[in-house]
Amino acid sequence: MKSIYEIAADAGIREEHLEPYGKYKAKIDPALLEELQGRPDGRLVLVTAVNPTPAGEGKTLTTIGLAQSLNAIGRRTVAALREPSLGPVFGMKGGATGGGRAQIVPEEEINLHFTGDLHAITSANNLLSAMIDNHIYQGNALQLDPARIVWKRALDMNDRGLRSIVTGLGPGNGPVRESGFLITSASEVMAVLCLSENLEDLKRRLGQILIGYDVKGLPVTADKLKAVEAMAVLLKEAIKPNLVQTLEGTPVLVHGGPFANIAHGCSSLIATRTALKLGDIVVTEAGFGAELGAEKFFDIKCRQSGLKPSAAVLVVTAKALKYNGGAAKDRLGTEDLDSLKRGMGNLRRHVRNLQKFGVPVLVAINHFATDTDAEMEAIREECAALGVPAEVSKVFALGSEGGKQLAYALAGLLEEGQADFRPLYDTSLDLKSKIETIVKDIYGGEAVTYSPSASRALAQMEKLGYGGLPVCMAKTPYSFTDQPALLGAPEGFTVSVSGVSLSAGAGFIVVETGNTMRMPGLPKVPAAERMALGGDGQIEGLL
Amino acid sequence: MKSIYEIAADAGIREEHLEPYGKYKAKIDPALLEELQGRPDGRLVLVTAVNPTPAGEGKTLTTIGLAQSLNAIGRRTVAALREPSLGPVFGMKGGATGGGRAQIVPEEEINLHFTGDLHAITSANNLLSAMIDNHIYQGNALQLDPARIVWKRALDMNDRGLRSIVTGLGPGNGPVRESGFLITSASEVMAVLCLSENLEDLKRRLGQILIGYDVKGLPVTADKLKAVEAMAVLLKEAIKPNLVQTLEGTPVLVHGGPFANIAHGCSSLIATRTALKLGDIVVTEAGFGAELGAEKFFDIKCRQSGLKPSAAVLVVTAKALKYNGGAAKDRLGTEDLDSLKRGMGNLRRHVRNLQKFGVPVLVAINHFATDTDAEMEAIREECAALGVPAEVSKVFALGSEGGKQLAYALAGLLEEGQADFRPLYDTSLDLKSKIETIVKDIYGGEAVTYSPSASRALAQMEKLGYGGLPVCMAKTPYSFTDQPALLGAPEGFTVSVSGVSLSAGAGFIVVETGNTMRMPGLPKVPAAERMALGGDGQIEGLL
Repeated sequence: MKSIYEIAADAGIREEHLEPYGKYKAKIDPALLEELQGRPDGRLVLVTAVNPTPAGEGKTLTTIGLAQSLNAIGRRTVAALREPSLGPVFGMKGGATGGGRAQIVPEEEINLHFTGDLHAITSANNLLSAMIDNHIYQGNALQLDPARIVWKRALDMNDRGLRSIVTGLGPGNGPVRESGFLITSASEVMAVLCLSENLEDLKRRLGQILIGYDVKGLPVTADKLKAVEAMAVLLKEAIKPNLVQTLEGTPVLVHGGPFANIAHGCSSLIATRTALKLGDIVVTEAGFGAELGAEKFFDIKCRQSGLKPSAAVLVVTAKALKYNGGAAKDRLGTEDLDSLKRGMGNLRRHVRNLQKFGVPVLVAINHFATDTDAEMEAIREECAALGVPAEVSKVFALGSEGGKQLAYALAGLLEEGQADFRPLYDTSLDLKSKIETIVKDIYGGEAVTYSPSASRALAQMEKLGYGGLPVCMAKTPYSFTDQPALLGAPEGFTVSVSGVSLSAGAGFIVVETGNTMRMPGLPKVPAAERMALGGDGQIEGLL
Repeated sequence: MKSIYEIAADAGIREEHLEPYGKYKAKIDPALLEELQGRPDGRLVLVTAVNPTPAGEGKTLTTIGLAQSLNAIGRRTVAALREPSLGPVFGMKGGATGGGRAQIVPEEEINLHFTGDLHAITSANNLLSAMIDNHIYQGNALQLDPARIVWKRALDMNDRGLRSIVTGLGPGNGPVRESGFLITSASEVMAVLCLSENLEDLKRRLGQILIGYDVKGLPVTADKLKAVEAMAVLLKEAIKPNLVQTLEGTPVLVHGGPFANIAHGCSSLIATRTALKLGDIVVTEAGFGAELGAEKFFDIKCRQSGLKPSAAVLVVTAKALKYNGGAAKDRLGTEDLDSLKRGMGNLRRHVRNLQKFGVPVLVAINHFATDTDAEMEAIREECAALGVPAEVSKVFALGSEGGKQLAYALAGLLEEGQADFRPLYDTSLDLKSKIETIVKDIYGGEAVTYSPSASRALAQMEKLGYGGLPVCMAKTPYSFTDQPALLGAPEGFTVSVSGVSLSAGAGFIVVETGNTMRMPGLPKVPAAERMALGGDGQIEGLL
């Protein structure tokens, strides 16, 4: 690893703008972004993927590897990634720092407390919670209805026991009310931080957060509790982007990690803007598959901020297509051209979807050791038929060497300058029309049904003046539909909207289909049980 | 402020042992302590105080100021302090970084997230909680009794609504059980971290934590859940001491902050040991007044570790003595020799108590602008009659200049080498005898009564083999008795033990008198409401 000062200097960041956290991590002072306002932006590339499968598609891996490869072919490139949450690290998923020769480092520190951003978000979230209950306890001047507080506490932990709780029991501890905890990445504070332009914008958004309703049924926002300034005090360091490096010394901004279901699922806007001033190309990723992650990246993050992405890279694997084509989970390492072909519909729909946003698409075929030449060739042929470029990526095994063809293809696409980004829908549509546009044009469905409470909530949102917000779909990532088992490219289906909630600070309406998990549980054998720490501080079993 | 590298270099810490967190804070690699094993220890001085009053005694202030003054008179001195908790910072108390010209800096960062230690402790605490409920949920192989889980979750927040809660409600979220949250500084993980010699010792102690009982009524410890290694992974950075500086550039280790009631209330052992290798004199403090803080420092921390303190500095103010002598809270700024004289009994008892531990005592009279010469003289005379040196300290107003007389007096006391430290009681005594020794010899009481459940619990602790542990008294800090309103030096009183709990990892039995608060609440107008953050990141209202 190079010193973080060296990485910063290579990226054009002077020492005065760097706040080191240990020797290999640093925060970047927002003064840098202000100083560079006059510099033209680099080109923004979104890395997204087909629907995720148990085999793993390698989206983060490809983002890191592609950034390394672009630098290797002489394109000054910076990557912008989300930061991991402790919950999955100790639960099931393991780390989120890439793999093989396409990793960001120091991987253990990034996967553990990193620079404390998630802890600061947890604190800000919970300060607001404590102030809500204290407000009621101390006389309830705002006449909050304890039964209609929608703001929940947060912890960065997988803890199903905290999903649904009763608080305030016992004498002098009130109010007694039903509540619960979210995992921190599902907190609206996380989404707010990731969509804010600066501290002022952060405070404005925090103030708009809906905390609940008063006894007359009117909405009450966080600014009414005088909590916003103190929350911003807790977040003033967390809002600064974090700089780390890849194994090949490519600069990477790792900052923010909102959930990809009930939030928009991409890293912070401030990090993206900073990266665009430092790199001629910025490679970033969005959560889940393209029908969720890319749609939200475009319709929420890019729309709100005015960012104009120049291209999308769609990560696909032979394994994922075979799985989408019906191959069994334990047979994905075997050549199976029939399943592969049946799964192509998934790839096709994602490609066509991305084109609807006006960005050119490049397919990155992330290569596994068990993939055969015939499988690679079949995917290439499919892409040729679709009229989109495709390259095999071997960045896991080979680092930048394994991604040069992909990098050249992307550089070529960017130089052609075909992009003419546009969001999918107009926000002036009513809320149901926005939902139906996404379901029909992106998911490929036929209709949307609404639970009575969801219909009522949508009508109420419009009545309260929130009808002009974009929608944030919360849906299973495994299928274009709202049924996780319906793989491939289903048609003629109906999506059922079960609930609706407002993230007024983040600036979107969350549309829930099915049961959306905001606080995961631990599995039978949590990853935590497999960890060990040596006397010298060496960790085993974390990654 | 000097760069933290400069402070470190002055203190004899090489750059390779320093892990910077920003430009003015750093963690110290434990390798430094190993490397310096052969170096003789400096002399350890405890700063403690008379019973706390609403006026504030300035114990932290005096510790910081004394360290500055000792350096100013040519004694190489390092201070070792506790780190603040976010709960009080946003609740009531404000920061914990000294004041006037005797402060540690950067004060805002120290009072906010600092280097993340409290967040790491929160995470480790709550990982264990999540693993307990998950164990029961996944089949409960250990046959844990859900009604007898004693381990609670923790947050670094004042939030009374979390004191008593029911968790695990709703389908698939079980087990349903009564539980609650502690503030992080009250977590046994905090006490364990502060008493551990190194990572191995930390793991051993974490493993010994009592989490609850099984259906047969047998105790179950954390090691049975395979949680210990992962908890240690979360704590591996938090166990490293933090280096900061005073306004005059004196090096200060700020590390760990266990509650002073249900825990032992002093900064970490690793920080003390490191400071003793770096300074010829180490000045450290303990929470609350001497009958609680000093007693635990000596009987728990020094006993467990083998540390041999060389002196105690007892902080007293004219205001505190007047308050203890019956003066009204709003009259403490007025000369009142009668009240002062009546309050002297409090000072006398603390002086005699400290002498029982075999350490020489120096009285530091912390000077307020409203104090009169006659008041200062009266305290000096009282100390002369007691045969202990006393000096007026003006470190708030004057920095090191204001504490030179105190520093010379301390240096003189240390050079005389009178100390012959001994704990108050032998741990081989039964638990009730230990409690009674403290109540009689330190508090000045006559007897102890026990609630039936406390008596049963003490008997059970002895039966389970924990009878050899020292006791950790949880008592109001405002009085020698268990009644906060009984000021001065009451006699003939009885202390009532209401409950007993086991901190087997920390290595003590907590003895509760009255209602011990482990999760504070917010006041009518929380400090959070008065805070403001400027666009440039400038904070108002934090300190």
